[in-house]
Amino acid sequence: MVKKITSILVLRLLALGATISALVVTVTTHDSRHVFNLTFKASYTNAPTLRYFVVVNAIASGYSIIVLLIPSKNFLWKFILISDLIVTSMLVSGISAALGVAQVGKKGNAHAGWLPICDQVPKFCDRLTGALIAGFIAPILYLVLVLFSIHNLINLLSVKA
Amino acid sequence: MVKKITSILVLRLLALGATISALVVTVTTHDSRHVFNLTFKASYTNAPTLRYFVVVNAIASGYSIIVLLIPSKNFLWKFILISDLIVTSMLVSGISAALGVAQVGKKGNAHAGWLPICDQVPKFCDRLTGALIAGFIAPILYLVLVLFSIHNLINLLSVKA
Repeated sequence: MVKKITSILVLRLLALGATISALVVTVTTHDSRHVFNLTFKASYTNAPTLRYFVVVNAIASGYSIIVLLIPSKNFLWKFILISDLIVTSMLVSGISAALGVAQVGKKGNAHAGWLPICDQVPKFCDRLTGALIAGFIAPILYLVLVLFSIHNLINLLSVKA
Repeated sequence: MVKKITSILVLRLLALGATISALVVTVTTHDSRHVFNLTFKASYTNAPTLRYFVVVNAIASGYSIIVLLIPSKNFLWKFILISDLIVTSMLVSGISAALGVAQVGKKGNAHAGWLPICDQVPKFCDRLTGALIAGFIAPILYLVLVLFSIHNLINLLSVKA
């Protein structure tokens, strides 16, 4: 039982670390380049999908902190599996949208006439890659948490059957 | 009990309808426009995120059909909640990535120098919007299915406690 609680605690702390890293790195990443008379500025605020990624990771970080602070005998634990599931879906959605647009930023799309931007703002792309890796790990950890909870629920049911 | 099974069956059939619609509409949508000497072709095959969206909806459709065909007393039902959860995550990921890139297609991104393409290929954008709506409904239906299963599991546990 203690081993189970420790595993869940470690998973929650790791997920919190991942979402906070994704959030902080994305928000603090800026780069700019001057091409002729134009200044080319790269920031998460310029892309709706990256703003969404930031919001999702901020909500998940806040949620993780709240869950870590809930006393063990609180009635709210009844709803933890469902809220974990919703946060997992949000994190999956955030990283998928961000990766979709990051792929265009990296490779461009010749058919749509969209040029890649990473040659122009390499610092932005490098740091964003780190944020996306952290943002990719977070929903995996949450998915493991949800699967773990379901597994425990099914086990409990088998014992009581 | 019969009411519950009917609700689940209806949800699964609706989800199958949504994923098949998203799949078929995306795959069959093409448009092209000639600008000067250039031919501007729009198809899901030109965007990796839309290809991913198609693959995810194809897998989910196949999965939905298999689940509908599994006999009610098969041992595989034990794993249905976990497989439903994985399919839900895949569908959330697919629609989020597709929506992220569709937003760029619709609005462009002035900071990155990416022009919107929907003025050039309106037929493609209109039909793709339909596919994205279907692709948005599918993970919601699957999420409801998963929440329903968790609710039943918790209820069962309360009854046996």
